[in-house]
Amino acid sequence: MTSLEPSLGSSLRALLERGPGTLKSLAGRAADAAERYRLLPSEFRYLPLVPEPSKFLCLGLNYVAHASEATYETPRYPVVFTRVPSSLLAHGEPLVVPTCSNQLDYEAELAVVVGRPGRNIPRDRALEWVAGYTLFNDGSIRDYQKRTHQWTLGKNFDGTGALGPELVTPDELPEGAKGLRIQMRVGDELVQDANTSDMIFDVATVLAELSEAMTLQPGDVIAMGTPSGVGAARTPPRFLRAGDVCEVSIERIGVLRNPVVDASR
Amino acid sequence: MTSLEPSLGSSLRALLERGPGTLKSLAGRAADAAERYRLLPSEFRYLPLVPEPSKFLCLGLNYVAHASEATYETPRYPVVFTRVPSSLLAHGEPLVVPTCSNQLDYEAELAVVVGRPGRNIPRDRALEWVAGYTLFNDGSIRDYQKRTHQWTLGKNFDGTGALGPELVTPDELPEGAKGLRIQMRVGDELVQDANTSDMIFDVATVLAELSEAMTLQPGDVIAMGTPSGVGAARTPPRFLRAGDVCEVSIERIGVLRNPVVDASR
Repeated sequence: MTSLEPSLGSSLRALLERGPGTLKSLAGRAADAAERYRLLPSEFRYLPLVPEPSKFLCLGLNYVAHASEATYETPRYPVVFTRVPSSLLAHGEPLVVPTCSNQLDYEAELAVVVGRPGRNIPRDRALEWVAGYTLFNDGSIRDYQKRTHQWTLGKNFDGTGALGPELVTPDELPEGAKGLRIQMRVGDELVQDANTSDMIFDVATVLAELSEAMTLQPGDVIAMGTPSGVGAARTPPRFLRAGDVCEVSIERIGVLRNPVVDASR
Repeated sequence: MTSLEPSLGSSLRALLERGPGTLKSLAGRAADAAERYRLLPSEFRYLPLVPEPSKFLCLGLNYVAHASEATYETPRYPVVFTRVPSSLLAHGEPLVVPTCSNQLDYEAELAVVVGRPGRNIPRDRALEWVAGYTLFNDGSIRDYQKRTHQWTLGKNFDGTGALGPELVTPDELPEGAKGLRIQMRVGDELVQDANTSDMIFDVATVLAELSEAMTLQPGDVIAMGTPSGVGAARTPPRFLRAGDVCEVSIERIGVLRNPVVDASR
């Protein structure tokens, strides 16, 4: 994007910060650019969809069956933690099993990208603040996540949070991205299989609740939590190993694919 | 700084990203600049010391007496949560009591600013990664902090995390900023009074532990936790009200002063 149109900024965040019309303007230009520039997969590489969001908020336990398998009560309010940019990776980049733990686990999630600034957003208009949706693999180092009662450390290892590949705008999806099948595959195995309508707190509710506390900003990312089927809750547990390949998919949003490697490689 | 020396970048983070010699180089230039430019307090305003760090990591329960008053066990590992940039404010700016809660509480803390990138930092050399120290008031909305088991939401209200005013470099302080008296005053009342040597996990240990999970980056901030005496643990509780003034002080580091206002003003 930078090389084609430097005036649009060098990241999705910078683009969204230019105001609500910029994304539509870009769509027009991109349609034209596709005629002039034909990029082959070897000629570009993905970055995390938003490489450095001002904030990356994550929901925990937002599907009843996952809260249950994780042995937590069904939450009455959104359970919130955050991701730091150093933990993010792009579509195609490797998820990393760190040297200090063998408990890297997958989590398929719907992610929301915020389009414009908002505080105390009313729930009934909250979807107006959504720039689009994408996929997230909330890779978690389970022993570090549970080492204390606050999950942050185990949720923020380098190279564990895959975000992308693309932004799908709301006009292409059902309202609030509801009713979409969400799945995780590890290799050929289907390990998570649910529907975005199974979420306890939907996108509009979450935007309203979070913005009661803080101003949401263009490019902010909100990960909506994972359904049941995570590796830690299986018998025996099924953690990720070098050579595995994770695929998050949500119908009409796409596929986010990441191989797994050892940190030592 | 921007207007005097644009080549140094427009924030402390940008300055530190230019490499380890930049801070010393700036000190030389600043000594000279003081002769040429005499700024009056009315001619500049403070920003949060690092307005948009790539990450802002906070320790919880890092003083035994505070863990006890908060009715938690003394932690065996650092308890970590994060701050988002929208929650930060500068020396002198108002702490905000939100419309949805009257439980804004103060927390005096030592904060560390990271000077250079590091992963798996060895504990015995960890202090080499410190650019300097400053003060932090980890303003917390207690009912939201405790609404679920994850504290993030109550720790990230707009206008609740005061950071600054200045960076004090390690050469001006005892090793690891140990042995310094740390205090919080609300108006004339001394409400927290402890010593940085009372911390359970010291600065070097925390840098080593955190960097086991993630790459620390120039300008990253680590808040070291608060001692006992917070408002929520008092009988009766003593939450902040419009008209209060908070002063965090640590000897040889300075004073961080913020008035309290209501959001509706």
